[in-house]
Amino acid sequence: VLTLGSSAVASAQDVDPLPSWNEGKAKQAIIAFVIKTTTQNSPDFVPPGQRIVTFDNDGTLWAEQPMYFQLLFALDLVKDLAPQHPEWKDKEPFASLLKGDVKGALAGGDKAILQIVAATHAGMSTDDFAAIVKEWIGKARHPVSKRLYTEMVYQPMLELLSFLRTNDFKTFIVSGGGIEFMRPWTEEVYGIPPEWVVGSSIKTKYVMQGDTPALMRLPEIDFIDDKEGKPIGINSHIGRRPIAAFGNSDGDLQMLEWTTAGTGARFGLLVHHTDAEREWAYDRKSHIGKLDKALDEAQAKGWTVVDMKQDWKVIYPPTK
Amino acid sequence: VLTLGSSAVASAQDVDPLPSWNEGKAKQAIIAFVIKTTTQNSPDFVPPGQRIVTFDNDGTLWAEQPMYFQLLFALDLVKDLAPQHPEWKDKEPFASLLKGDVKGALAGGDKAILQIVAATHAGMSTDDFAAIVKEWIGKARHPVSKRLYTEMVYQPMLELLSFLRTNDFKTFIVSGGGIEFMRPWTEEVYGIPPEWVVGSSIKTKYVMQGDTPALMRLPEIDFIDDKEGKPIGINSHIGRRPIAAFGNSDGDLQMLEWTTAGTGARFGLLVHHTDAEREWAYDRKSHIGKLDKALDEAQAKGWTVVDMKQDWKVIYPPTK
Ligand SMILES: [Ca+2]
Ligand SMILES: [Ca+2]
Repeated sequence: VLTLGSSAVASAQDVDPLPSWNEGKAKQAIIAFVIKTTTQNSPDFVPPGQRIVTFDNDGTLWAEQPMYFQLLFALDLVKDLAPQHPEWKDKEPFASLLKGDVKGALAGGDKAILQIVAATHAGMSTDDFAAIVKEWIGKARHPVSKRLYTEMVYQPMLELLSFLRTNDFKTFIVSGGGIEFMRPWTEEVYGIPPEWVVGSSIKTKYVMQGDTPALMRLPEIDFIDDKEGKPIGINSHIGRRPIAAFGNSDGDLQMLEWTTAGTGARFGLLVHHTDAEREWAYDRKSHIGKLDKALDEAQAKGWTVVDMKQDWKVIYPPTK
Repeated sequence: VLTLGSSAVASAQDVDPLPSWNEGKAKQAIIAFVIKTTTQNSPDFVPPGQRIVTFDNDGTLWAEQPMYFQLLFALDLVKDLAPQHPEWKDKEPFASLLKGDVKGALAGGDKAILQIVAATHAGMSTDDFAAIVKEWIGKARHPVSKRLYTEMVYQPMLELLSFLRTNDFKTFIVSGGGIEFMRPWTEEVYGIPPEWVVGSSIKTKYVMQGDTPALMRLPEIDFIDDKEGKPIGINSHIGRRPIAAFGNSDGDLQMLEWTTAGTGARFGLLVHHTDAEREWAYDRKSHIGKLDKALDEAQAKGWTVVDMKQDWKVIYPPTK
């Protein structure tokens, strides 16, 4: 395995492992980190099993505008379910949602969000929910790009995930999004299996349906994997501090702090959305993916900041 | 990887992969399951990434008498900490514990257990707790055998874990024991890395100690990974239903039900403690590791039951 790791790095120097990345500081920093942590006899060498790295999802591996894709999923479900719920016409947050007024719906705060979660994410078995997600992700289209959501993943990040795994890194997702919303498709799209996905969750209950056991999804928040929750989720699911972490917003600040505070070689990276033409440009004042404190901290701590407009040759993979 | 899997099974037929297991139904059933799930073109073939198997720990991978080893760990800590807590002399459950009366201490039920957990498992960082566990496991000795606890793991089960991993199975622990009590040593002892360990947990809190972030352990139960909790913990941490599950008590009943209710080839196994001479003999009436309902269910569902006395040539690995 060690030999494989070294030869992969060697070949990385011959064949560009990150072809969609322009030459520059960000690309250099990534490659330098991989080389020094995988080269035996390097003072920064990390044994393969301990090469734990964590990636935020929304805004880091795939797009998140004009709103989180999981919220668009919930909206689509509310529309599908509306005929069975005539009372929603006069009941918030559903009345606003059905009129297309998301802002109005979310004005109800946490209570509104929990009502939407309860109506769309709970009350079915985990197997049934996975099937609902799979069906949606296979056919739903983004309101602006009209692409499948799985075609709005970032090609440069797909190359980075693959480069890291070729060098025996274990690539985990650590996202504020729902853990069971991601797991049905992350393996196919990112090469990341279910057990490498950490996210927010609702509670489940083990029940017998006749002779058949099922896990029923309850309308009750279990864990919010965001901000301080990210190091907690990492500790719970992975049990080891990552050596590198990749994010795009203030929700990732604690994950990057926690990761880079460890001993030995460490790497923190933020994707900065700077490309209004090919994607979206937003940071300190955005409601979605606000990047403010973490951008200052990146300066102070020497984390790598990706300038999407400058650093990425392409944003999305070619459509199939 | 597929080729590697098949050749490993082929070699399993030449060289005995389970030398500490006597020939018999249990050994045959294990080997048959591995062959049919790893042989390409077999109707029961399972791709390597999906070969998820789960093992209970106490009484399945290591011994659990005269009481759970984690409780013996807590007892040792209470004794170590007693000089700093003169008030414990007159305060339950500590007063009883310090007199060696564990039964008396546990008479206080959940409240007593939480007090012991709070005193011994909380109030320090996750890093500090891991160091405390490592120090204890490296030197503490079992009250009866006088062996290190890590020498009271079952040699036949070590061979089974290794046989499964050689065939590209992912071997997870799913235990009622504390997740952070196990992770510091499972990789060295069982070859199972921290991210493959699921267990009971207390809550943690992300704090800054000066410039340094830490996860502090709180005196508050987060999750009990036992009985109905096992399928819930599996779903949360692994996100996929196992194809085989190994346990020893009624605490594993739901895990085996959940595992074997899936489609395709499935395997359930219970370790039955029948050897009063080399280990301990206990089942339906034991306070620790009670095996009653699950033993009946094993009959009804065709799960494999290991008779330790008959099926295992040795119990523990040779002492070093
Ligand atoms: Ca994000
Ligand atoms: Ca057990």
